[in-house]
Amino acid sequence: MAQKPSIPKGTRDFGQEEMAARNYIFDTVRSVFKVFGYSQIETPAMENLSTLLGKYGDEGDKLLFRILNSGDAFSGVDAGAVQAPDGSLDGRAITAKVCEKGLRYDLTVPFARYVVQHQNDISFPFKRFQIQPVWRADRPQKGRYREFYQCDVDVVGSDSLLYELELLQMVDMVFSRLGIGVLIKVNNRKVLTGLAEICGFPDKVVDITVAIDKMEKIGLEKVEEELLERGLSAEAVGLLEPVLTLEGTTGEKISVMRKLFSDKDSATGLKGVEELEVLFSLVESAGIASRIEMDLSLARGLNYYTGAIFEVKALDFPIGSICGGGRYDNLTGIFGLEGMSGVGISFGADRIYDVLNGLDKFPLSLECSTRVLFAQMDEEVLPYLVSVATGLRNRGVACEIYPDRTKLKKQFDYADRKKIPFISINGGDETASGVVNIKNLNTGEQRSFLKEDIASMAEFIQE
Amino acid sequence: MAQKPSIPKGTRDFGQEEMAARNYIFDTVRSVFKVFGYSQIETPAMENLSTLLGKYGDEGDKLLFRILNSGDAFSGVDAGAVQAPDGSLDGRAITAKVCEKGLRYDLTVPFARYVVQHQNDISFPFKRFQIQPVWRADRPQKGRYREFYQCDVDVVGSDSLLYELELLQMVDMVFSRLGIGVLIKVNNRKVLTGLAEICGFPDKVVDITVAIDKMEKIGLEKVEEELLERGLSAEAVGLLEPVLTLEGTTGEKISVMRKLFSDKDSATGLKGVEELEVLFSLVESAGIASRIEMDLSLARGLNYYTGAIFEVKALDFPIGSICGGGRYDNLTGIFGLEGMSGVGISFGADRIYDVLNGLDKFPLSLECSTRVLFAQMDEEVLPYLVSVATGLRNRGVACEIYPDRTKLKKQFDYADRKKIPFISINGGDETASGVVNIKNLNTGEQRSFLKEDIASMAEFIQE
Repeated sequence: MAQKPSIPKGTRDFGQEEMAARNYIFDTVRSVFKVFGYSQIETPAMENLSTLLGKYGDEGDKLLFRILNSGDAFSGVDAGAVQAPDGSLDGRAITAKVCEKGLRYDLTVPFARYVVQHQNDISFPFKRFQIQPVWRADRPQKGRYREFYQCDVDVVGSDSLLYELELLQMVDMVFSRLGIGVLIKVNNRKVLTGLAEICGFPDKVVDITVAIDKMEKIGLEKVEEELLERGLSAEAVGLLEPVLTLEGTTGEKISVMRKLFSDKDSATGLKGVEELEVLFSLVESAGIASRIEMDLSLARGLNYYTGAIFEVKALDFPIGSICGGGRYDNLTGIFGLEGMSGVGISFGADRIYDVLNGLDKFPLSLECSTRVLFAQMDEEVLPYLVSVATGLRNRGVACEIYPDRTKLKKQFDYADRKKIPFISINGGDETASGVVNIKNLNTGEQRSFLKEDIASMAEFIQE
Repeated sequence: MAQKPSIPKGTRDFGQEEMAARNYIFDTVRSVFKVFGYSQIETPAMENLSTLLGKYGDEGDKLLFRILNSGDAFSGVDAGAVQAPDGSLDGRAITAKVCEKGLRYDLTVPFARYVVQHQNDISFPFKRFQIQPVWRADRPQKGRYREFYQCDVDVVGSDSLLYELELLQMVDMVFSRLGIGVLIKVNNRKVLTGLAEICGFPDKVVDITVAIDKMEKIGLEKVEEELLERGLSAEAVGLLEPVLTLEGTTGEKISVMRKLFSDKDSATGLKGVEELEVLFSLVESAGIASRIEMDLSLARGLNYYTGAIFEVKALDFPIGSICGGGRYDNLTGIFGLEGMSGVGISFGADRIYDVLNGLDKFPLSLECSTRVLFAQMDEEVLPYLVSVATGLRNRGVACEIYPDRTKLKKQFDYADRKKIPFISINGGDETASGVVNIKNLNTGEQRSFLKEDIASMAEFIQE
């Protein structure tokens, strides 16, 4: 075999350094989720295509990785019945016959399927998180992969705004532990719906949020022009003016909107304003208000979010949102279970990795796991080293013994390449007198210990 | 949709309790691997079929899950060219055209592919572990799944017997931490090869190991009869007699074999005996000899193991081997990189789970993650609870606030279902006086704390 083997395009191997960095992110996220009482679940990589199809739109259906049925998938398929007029095979017809399963495309649909399938065993409200890879047959490009991890946290079976708060608190705690400064933007779909309603253009929600978003860049006059171009009436644009020019504290902005919705008698808008008000007062109690901002132009997931909408931006690194989510009132409806309100957030592991890398915020301790290398000088010493290393390992100190008697230079190189900070070199003399020499390769400090004094060795090595 | 959704047969959802139990196993294994200086890697779920095909025998090839090429896989495939004479499609021909990728079948072949692909970036000896699911289109049955986790630890690029020792030490430490009593069996392929050689029947290795295995059950006479039936000569059977009737300590057994191989001039057999001797002397230095036994009948993986062979049995629970491995001298040869000796062990996560379950050895603390539930009595109290809960969470205490004001009975039920051991009930009086009541639901003990005294609360809740 002349050619080196390779992996499918859009997929990645993770070596030891990347794994240590990724585990650091996932362990941080996991520890935060747990302290808020969320439990982990996992679902299979393969789902029935009946579960997946039609949930992500036509584009999404095309991006599903389909798995050929096992056994002889094609046996019994009549070539004539799946043949296009030009003699080629009719892909759609034949795929339907030979593929019943597909790879998970996200964690949301499998979660909805899980909740419906296990509804009798679940205690609601159900607070779960899930960290697993997903697969999409997207065209691979920089930062876009065909296999990548998602990290979702959701609670379903309650419409309490306490959970909106919890999600914001978790986001805040995760990024504070990771050392990433963030701004968390919050909006409410009901407010957007209310605005479109009072204008008399309920289908123009997107146009209105785009307009709000452009205010800072192009100013009121141009934004109003655009709204007229997009088909809103002059009267509607006039109505929106107090929202477009909102200023002041969150409380003041909320007052302006309450008055507007109250004047125009919009129950939906008022409900949205009330939700924002309750949430921001809870955010105040939790002491995280300074990192959270109301942003009426935030419009992600408008197709399915029904209440709160969240998005997180890193403050000191130019990258898209690193986290996002919102409330959805009918996640499980697609599988026949109605009336299950839920709210959730998804952490973008790859982008968080890029931010930590870019800001150089990964802890130094990730670089080396092994703390000390025992060099091997001659064969007789090996049992002595094994016994000392065993004592250290039992105390949780990661150590290695060099596998062969060879030039010391080679053994030092090994420590160097693996960034092992301590080396221990012992020969017949040390063995005879029951002594262990350990040297700090960074500072040059060398100390000798009695073989039995594992505790002092551990302390020296772990400082 | 009338029918509840389901998952493909042979796959599983893992709920919160199973996940907690599985993470306990994986975390234990991982912490042991790390203390010996092994690093984690991950490879993609999908590999090119050119990487996977032909590595697992014809049966294995049939059990690979193949992934349909993305886009329109069938476009351009001429129906005539892939049609069998009876008008049905030729499965083999068409599969080759429409599937380039398959799901990982084990962790060994992807690891070999990884080592060859990244050989210039890897420091050898390369000590890696990998914990990921694999997929096999096997017929699902009790204890056999189409998706299951493997947990492999290997070192490649050295033939030092120190690594055989390390693997045995890691196995011993893992099961001692999990509280499972085990017997670790060790054999050496070179000894088996040597035996077959000196008999003059080099192709009868399996027959000889089967015979050794049956000694205890059916005795020398019947075993010798069987060997004759299996085609060995009377002289060969006579030669084997000292091995079949081996008795005494490991040292004594090794002496008998050394003499036999020495008399018959078998370099391979002598090499095997020497390896066993060195390994058992290292095992002695490491203080784990009592759990390790030489077993010449151990014959797993004879197709690829070239030196040590390992197998682990649980002492107090009837189940097959829960762990196994050995040394292979040419793992990466299939991808064109020769001369890379390796040795590894694979932990069977599903069986270890069954043993822990059967012996009731999972720690009780896995059952509940949340330590305290704050009941919600009236709306005014919520900000107060949020602030107290935030203080506890910052100290790492997992707590939840009940999401709604509702009957206390319902809130107690929630704590009960989630096995939350403490509840905190506070109304307007407590808020006004800055007090927090916490009750231990198991003992009935109730205490009151000052709102600021988070440390004392944490201590009470975590005891």
